[in-house]
Amino acid sequence: MSDIEIAQANEATEMKPITEIGAMVGLSADDLELYGKSKAKLTLAALKRLRQQPQGKLVLVTSINPTPAGEGKSTVTIGLGDALRLRGQNAVIALREPSLGPVMGMKGGATGGGYAQVVPMEDINLHFTGDMHALTTAVDTLAALIDNHLQQGNALNIDPRRILWRRVLDINDRALRHVTIGLGGVTSGVPRETEFDITVASELMAILCLAEDLADLKARIARIVIGYTYDRTPVTVADLGVTGAIAMLLRDAIKPNLVQTLAHTPTLIHGGPFANIAHGCNSILATRTALALGDIAITEAGFGADLGGEKFMDITAPALGKTPDVVVIVATVRALKYNGGQKLATLTEENRPALQAGFGNLKRHIHNMKRYGVPVVVAINEFATDTEAELNDLISLCEAAGATAVRANVWGEGGHGGLALADAVSTALQQPADFTPLYDNAAAPKAKIETIVQQIYGGRDVVYDHKAELALKTIAKNGWDQLPICMAKTQYSFSDDAKALGAPSDFTIHVRDVVPRLGAGFLVVMTGSVLTMPGLPKQPAALNMDVSDDGVISGLF
Amino acid sequence: MSDIEIAQANEATEMKPITEIGAMVGLSADDLELYGKSKAKLTLAALKRLRQQPQGKLVLVTSINPTPAGEGKSTVTIGLGDALRLRGQNAVIALREPSLGPVMGMKGGATGGGYAQVVPMEDINLHFTGDMHALTTAVDTLAALIDNHLQQGNALNIDPRRILWRRVLDINDRALRHVTIGLGGVTSGVPRETEFDITVASELMAILCLAEDLADLKARIARIVIGYTYDRTPVTVADLGVTGAIAMLLRDAIKPNLVQTLAHTPTLIHGGPFANIAHGCNSILATRTALALGDIAITEAGFGADLGGEKFMDITAPALGKTPDVVVIVATVRALKYNGGQKLATLTEENRPALQAGFGNLKRHIHNMKRYGVPVVVAINEFATDTEAELNDLISLCEAAGATAVRANVWGEGGHGGLALADAVSTALQQPADFTPLYDNAAAPKAKIETIVQQIYGGRDVVYDHKAELALKTIAKNGWDQLPICMAKTQYSFSDDAKALGAPSDFTIHVRDVVPRLGAGFLVVMTGSVLTMPGLPKQPAALNMDVSDDGVISGLF
Repeated sequence: MSDIEIAQANEATEMKPITEIGAMVGLSADDLELYGKSKAKLTLAALKRLRQQPQGKLVLVTSINPTPAGEGKSTVTIGLGDALRLRGQNAVIALREPSLGPVMGMKGGATGGGYAQVVPMEDINLHFTGDMHALTTAVDTLAALIDNHLQQGNALNIDPRRILWRRVLDINDRALRHVTIGLGGVTSGVPRETEFDITVASELMAILCLAEDLADLKARIARIVIGYTYDRTPVTVADLGVTGAIAMLLRDAIKPNLVQTLAHTPTLIHGGPFANIAHGCNSILATRTALALGDIAITEAGFGADLGGEKFMDITAPALGKTPDVVVIVATVRALKYNGGQKLATLTEENRPALQAGFGNLKRHIHNMKRYGVPVVVAINEFATDTEAELNDLISLCEAAGATAVRANVWGEGGHGGLALADAVSTALQQPADFTPLYDNAAAPKAKIETIVQQIYGGRDVVYDHKAELALKTIAKNGWDQLPICMAKTQYSFSDDAKALGAPSDFTIHVRDVVPRLGAGFLVVMTGSVLTMPGLPKQPAALNMDVSDDGVISGLF
Repeated sequence: MSDIEIAQANEATEMKPITEIGAMVGLSADDLELYGKSKAKLTLAALKRLRQQPQGKLVLVTSINPTPAGEGKSTVTIGLGDALRLRGQNAVIALREPSLGPVMGMKGGATGGGYAQVVPMEDINLHFTGDMHALTTAVDTLAALIDNHLQQGNALNIDPRRILWRRVLDINDRALRHVTIGLGGVTSGVPRETEFDITVASELMAILCLAEDLADLKARIARIVIGYTYDRTPVTVADLGVTGAIAMLLRDAIKPNLVQTLAHTPTLIHGGPFANIAHGCNSILATRTALALGDIAITEAGFGADLGGEKFMDITAPALGKTPDVVVIVATVRALKYNGGQKLATLTEENRPALQAGFGNLKRHIHNMKRYGVPVVVAINEFATDTEAELNDLISLCEAAGATAVRANVWGEGGHGGLALADAVSTALQQPADFTPLYDNAAAPKAKIETIVQQIYGGRDVVYDHKAELALKTIAKNGWDQLPICMAKTQYSFSDDAKALGAPSDFTIHVRDVVPRLGAGFLVVMTGSVLTMPGLPKQPAALNMDVSDDGVISGLF
């Protein structure tokens, strides 16, 4: 059966009312705002109350660099939660919300797989509770207000060539990457060049995911730098006078969403910045809620540990006020063999040398995560074509690298396939974690970037385009250089070259631009050719999607 | 107290659970999909069952041409429903969904006013149940799939200069009226000129409002003509192979939303095409649901009776399979005096000659609606500054024009202020209606347009730009000329000149373009300088909006 078939069979017969799922972790019906029978948002009052409760332990799930062979990070996260519950632990999961753009393009769905899924999968993958749409609307309303300010006399003296704020859509639409707007004469705006990003790349998504509450959300929105005046003074949302309106549009989007796994594990799904172009973690409100409701909270960071993992440690954890007690790194034999040079088409064949060669990728991630002072467990997400010899090799390699490695088959068996992983995580949770941050925010931006490149990526040095050098000067002039760094980099490699698999070293990172994001509270460092608006493939997943006359959806997977 | 203050005082203490409102009209908890405690969608199963139930009587609420003085059509619609319930009638209301663009721009809110409001007003005016966002996403996903088709080799041979399908946002964003996209080199799309519309102007909104069910929705989406090939063959969504994906994105949006008035009258709010640039009526699923649940269904059409009224009669009613039993035309003394030449600033002063002069506007609307063979009642929406002499003049003028006229003060008194109107409507419902359509669809497009211009607008003739002539040739060549007509015209005047108030005659209507909308099943006739993407004013309503740290919204009105 396909993922959607497994999900739909379950949704029809097994899914519990979301009020029952809430009751499992002490939430009353009044704490929940229902969206249908199986989705709910937590009320602002409930969130406020939960701030006072003691926090559980925190497990961060991250992975090796992703490959076309698939790693199954969400699947393992969900399966681990289910397995811990089977062991009698009060585990609660926190995940990111799928972005519709990739769902319609390549991905088809982002809610786990097999018997380790969150449901209702169709709703979560499509419009869910409207958070992504509220963000799109808020971002684009702000953009319209900026262009209207130009149109109506430009009292703030904004330089149309120096506007940083871009429009977004939650759609993979490459034709909107570079556009000219405001054409058609005096009544139709001021002509200028601009770009559309995908919604998850917007600073407003980062802000939603880092905000403590509505008050913090408003304060962060007020600080957003939307561009510069003709004399290079930063212009903020507060200057435009529309902080309240933009925050108002996010009044409901800020509340985390509660759903369940196929095995009824309570799961918060909230916020979804991509880790290649943004900070890649679900909202601190979601993870904090999981920490308050569960004795063990399992939270997922996007893409590989070089991106989502690093950013969780250096950006999210300080905002959350809590560092991980254990890090789980998801790896597959297939993906490591691909990293070791085996072709995609032959990955079903045993190839121990390729595994050995590709292990360098996992080894560096293990080293990096251990560097933060947190115990590391490797979850080997099993595929039917993995051989026992390969699996045993991988376990030995991990142990030699100082990490426990455990096989898990949660795709095929749900939580029952993750019991060994759950036990390994429980054991690791007994070990002391002694968190050590990677860099000091007081350091200069170039020093912080170099630290990430050398200590996490394994690179040699960094070169800056002229545009990036100018941006760094502006950042220094405005006193923004003590902000943490959010790297925008390809997810496929430690380097900024998507084709450099495995564990490349001695490479140079090319910085094209550095964008100040005062609301999010970090500097986005654009490297290589990373795109902030994806495109659709030749055969988009949309071609296979359908809905029956009775409303049954097919073609998500 | 302001509208939002009245609404919020009520929402906190008086609003009933939406399941109770549903139960009043025979809906079980299983018939409803809750969105919070006070909003719900009807399930597809419930909609199917209601198709078999007998239908109540239908009251269509329309109005004079709108003015800056305000008419209060939604307010009267809501107050009439509440008043009929006070009289013991089982009345159910059907309204359009507010568009967020105008809410953030000029309007501030579109849920009635005073003591005749629908609640929760903040939710309905902002994201509501996500229908508008689902439409925006579906429209823009289709656009991205079209541009991706060009990018990936253009197998269908689509002419990039002849693409009809436009992107949309539910935002007043004049800077997106004319844009060039696909710039930036080979990987970023095929460069071309295009335009963004506001979501409510999209054909997909019209389709959602005219579809009988999901099967009909899919059939209509499949028929949409997105553009032409280089050899001028129409290209449809079916040709692109993405009918299922686009329909899937609207699986929930097609279900009507149930809310309540301040007085707990069940109200369906669903779909919201503007009547100036689209057909202007709420969905036939909403009105049909109101007809099945109520003995009297009150449905509202957009802007003046020349636009929303005419389109209800000639486009919506045939799709609905039901014509109105009574038409209510909303008018105010203020707005008629404005139509009669009195300045906005002095409308609080008595001016019987201006009223007499401006009455011509209402008189023509009365004549037009009576022409369809349906009894007409004029609802005079009272303002405190109206004098008794003016009100009595207006009643006499209406009676001389063959329509009962009744004073209503539902803004100040809710349903209690609309009892006389309710009684007049009940009396009119006893009269026989003998519906006569305005034109025969078999007539040529120019003949149908001329009929509307002469018989409804009171104009003399029609002139066609070269582009419109070419479009009509294409329409004839493809055999689309038997479709009904959807006029796109300024709402402020019977003519295509927004400044020609009152009852202009002997004018010429200028047709710029005729756009075939095969999915909606009509031809859109673009007249004068009507815009399909509004702009923001110098001081947008957004400047006054806010949300408190506890989530209380202010600045909607």
